[in-house]
Amino acid sequence: MDQVTLGMVLEARERLKNVVRRTDLVPSKILSNEKREVYLKTECLQHTGSFKVRGAYNKISQLSPDELKCGVIASSAGNHAQGVALAAQTFGVKATIVMPEGAPLAKVAATRGYGAEVVLSGAVYDDAYAKAMAIQKETGATFVHPFNDPLVIAGQGSVGLEIMDEMPDLNAVVVPVGGGGLISGVAIAVKLLHPQVKVIGVQASGAPSMLTSLREEKITSLASANTIADGIAVKTPGDLTYDICRKYVDEIVTVDDDEIAAAILTLLEKCKIVAEGAGAVSVAAVMHGKINVEGKIACVVSGGNIDVTTLQRIMDKGLIKSGRLAKVNTVIEDRPGRLSKLLAVVSQTGANVVSIQHDRTNLDVGIGMSFLELTLETNDSDHLSRVLKQMSDNGYQILNAKSH
Amino acid sequence: MDQVTLGMVLEARERLKNVVRRTDLVPSKILSNEKREVYLKTECLQHTGSFKVRGAYNKISQLSPDELKCGVIASSAGNHAQGVALAAQTFGVKATIVMPEGAPLAKVAATRGYGAEVVLSGAVYDDAYAKAMAIQKETGATFVHPFNDPLVIAGQGSVGLEIMDEMPDLNAVVVPVGGGGLISGVAIAVKLLHPQVKVIGVQASGAPSMLTSLREEKITSLASANTIADGIAVKTPGDLTYDICRKYVDEIVTVDDDEIAAAILTLLEKCKIVAEGAGAVSVAAVMHGKINVEGKIACVVSGGNIDVTTLQRIMDKGLIKSGRLAKVNTVIEDRPGRLSKLLAVVSQTGANVVSIQHDRTNLDVGIGMSFLELTLETNDSDHLSRVLKQMSDNGYQILNAKSH
Repeated sequence: MDQVTLGMVLEARERLKNVVRRTDLVPSKILSNEKREVYLKTECLQHTGSFKVRGAYNKISQLSPDELKCGVIASSAGNHAQGVALAAQTFGVKATIVMPEGAPLAKVAATRGYGAEVVLSGAVYDDAYAKAMAIQKETGATFVHPFNDPLVIAGQGSVGLEIMDEMPDLNAVVVPVGGGGLISGVAIAVKLLHPQVKVIGVQASGAPSMLTSLREEKITSLASANTIADGIAVKTPGDLTYDICRKYVDEIVTVDDDEIAAAILTLLEKCKIVAEGAGAVSVAAVMHGKINVEGKIACVVSGGNIDVTTLQRIMDKGLIKSGRLAKVNTVIEDRPGRLSKLLAVVSQTGANVVSIQHDRTNLDVGIGMSFLELTLETNDSDHLSRVLKQMSDNGYQILNAKSH
Repeated sequence: MDQVTLGMVLEARERLKNVVRRTDLVPSKILSNEKREVYLKTECLQHTGSFKVRGAYNKISQLSPDELKCGVIASSAGNHAQGVALAAQTFGVKATIVMPEGAPLAKVAATRGYGAEVVLSGAVYDDAYAKAMAIQKETGATFVHPFNDPLVIAGQGSVGLEIMDEMPDLNAVVVPVGGGGLISGVAIAVKLLHPQVKVIGVQASGAPSMLTSLREEKITSLASANTIADGIAVKTPGDLTYDICRKYVDEIVTVDDDEIAAAILTLLEKCKIVAEGAGAVSVAAVMHGKINVEGKIACVVSGGNIDVTTLQRIMDKGLIKSGRLAKVNTVIEDRPGRLSKLLAVVSQTGANVVSIQHDRTNLDVGIGMSFLELTLETNDSDHLSRVLKQMSDNGYQILNAKSH
C-alpha cells in the first residue's frame, strides 16, 4: 500500500481550508495558442509566497500534544523556512529554522517575522541540515522534512485538488520538481481521480536529479546542482517522492537557465505576476515547446520569492535578448561638438540613451579619436537595427553592438 | 434622477459574467497591521491587464445592430485602448483606436493583438483625440469615452460589487482616480448598498484634477498633469464623474511619485504582483498613512501595464532608497594591486560589487591617485554603513556615498 493515499490528500485539503489561500487559476492569453489554453496556478500569491506552507501545516497538524510541546525544526534557506514558520505560528508551536550563514537578509527577516527562531549556521545547506539534526537531538523537536514526508506530500497535493475542482476538463498539469514533494502530492490527487490527465514535471537542466534517478531506475545523487532556480536545486530526490514519481508521473522535462529567465520576464511583463526561478520552470517548459499536450494546461507557478536584484539581472538579460536594451560601441573624433552630433543622430531614431561611456585612452582607437559605449533603450530588434543603420549611414563605425 | 443607477451597475455585472475575470481579492500581510487588514483587488490580473475592459464591454453590449455595423472608435495610449479592442473583438465589431505617434510599441502591438485597427496620429493625447473625432464623423463609429459615459461607469462599478460580495464587512475601499470613471462606478455600487463603507479616491499629486474640482466646487482643468502614474494623468474630470464623486465619494487624497514608486516596489517584492503607477496609488495611500480608516480595507490595484524599463528605474530608485544599491566614490593610489586590495576589503563585508568606474584623469584627486566609483549591492542601510566604516577603517576616504 502507498505511503501517501488519495484519502490523505483529501484530509489535508479539509485541514487547510481557511488556513491557506485557494489561489487563483489565472488564464494566460500570451501563453495560449490555437492548440492550447494555459492557466497559471498562482501559488506565488500563497501566504509566504509559495506552496510550502501547505505541507508544513498538514504535518504539524498531526503532531501529538507531547510532540507539539517540543516544537518543530527545519533547515532551509528558502520557501520551506517561511512555510514551516507560518504553520508553526498558526498552531502556537515553537519553530527553529536553521539557515546557512549567507542566507539573504530578506528571507531571514521574513522567517523571523512569522515568529520562528532563526539559527544561522554553516556555509551551505548541508551544514545547516547537520546543525538542525544536532539541535533536534538535544530538544526533541520534530524535524519537518521539505519533501520526503507523507504528510508534507499530502499537504502539497491540495494544489492538485484545487486545480481539478476548478477545471475538471484539464488535459495536463505541469509542475516544478526539486525534491519531488509538490509533484508527488499533485500526481496522487490528479491521477487517482482523473487518470487521463497528464502529470508532467519540470526540472532545471542544471539539477535534474529526479529525471536522472528515474532514468537510472534508482535514486541517484548529482555531483552538483547549478541553476538560477535555487528552490529546486536538489541533488538527491527522496525515496518516497522517487517511488511516487515513478508510479504516477507521466514525464519529466528540463529547461535551462536562459529559458527560465525568459519565463520569469514573460510572467512579469505579460502576466503581471512575480515568479522565482523554481516557480517559473513550468511556464518555461510550455513557452519553449517542451510540453507535447494540446488542450487545457495548468502550470503551477509554485513560488515568487526572488531577490529584487536577481530579478533586475534577469530583466536586463531578457531586455538585451529581445533588442530592447543594447550596448553599442563606436568611435568619434575627439573634438568639441562631436558627441552631441552623434546623440542627435541617435535621437532621430527614437532610441533612448541610458548611459554613455566616453574613453579617449582606449588603445584600440587612433590618436585624436575617442571610444564611446552607448547604452540604448530600443523598442525591439528591428528598431535596434534601424538605429545601427542610421549610425552607419551617418559615417559612424559600429565596433560592437551587444544585443547578445 | 442619477444618470448612473445601482440597477445599471447590477445589469453590467450580469453582462460581464463569463466575459471578464472576477479578479482575486488577495490579503496582504505586509500592508496590514494591528489596526487594519488590507486586501488587494487585483485588476492588474484582469484581461488586458486593467479594469478598462469592463466599461468598454458594457458600453458596446448596448449598441443597436446599426451602431454595431459602424464599429467603435476610441483614442487612448493606454489601458482603455486594449479594453475597447478586446471588448469589440468579443462582439465581432470593428474597433479603431487612435494612439499618439510616440505610443510604446508594446501597447500598439497588444491593441492590434486584440484585432483593433490602430491609427497613429499626433504627438500627444489631445491630437489623437481630435483625429478620433474626425474619423468618427466620417465613419459614424460610436466613440467610447474612457470615463465620462453612464454605461462605461456602470461597467467599472462591477469591481465594487465583486469586492462587497466577497467582503460584506468591509470598512473602506480605496480607488485610483484619473477621469473618475472607476471610482464613480464603485461608489454607486458600494454606497447605495452599504452606505457605511468609506469610498476614498487617490490621485497623483502631480495631477489632482478631481480633487481640485471638488474643492473649487466646479469642474476645473489643470494646466499640466505630471506623474509617473500616466494612467491617471487627466487634466479635466468629466461632468458625469464629477457629479457622482461630489455626491458619493467620501474623500480624495493624493500621493507623490516617490510614494507611488515605493508602492510599486512593495507590490512587486512583497505581494508578487506587477502594478503600474496608476494601479499602485491606492496602495501608496495606505502605505504612507493617507487613509484614516481602521478595519478591513480593499485597495483596487487597477492595472499592471507598465514598461519593463520604467519598472527597472523604479526598482533602482527603491533599492537605493532602502540601502540595497549604492554608489560609493573613493580614491586609491594609482599603482598595481591597489584596486584588488580595496575590493578585498569590500568583499569582507559581504557586499557585492556590481560595477567599477576607474578614472585616473579626475581633476578632483591628486596626481598619482585614481578616482573610483563602486556600485555595490548591500542588504540594507545598516549593512551599507558597515561597508563604509570598513572602508574608512582601512584608510579609504569616502568622497560621496549615494544612497540618495
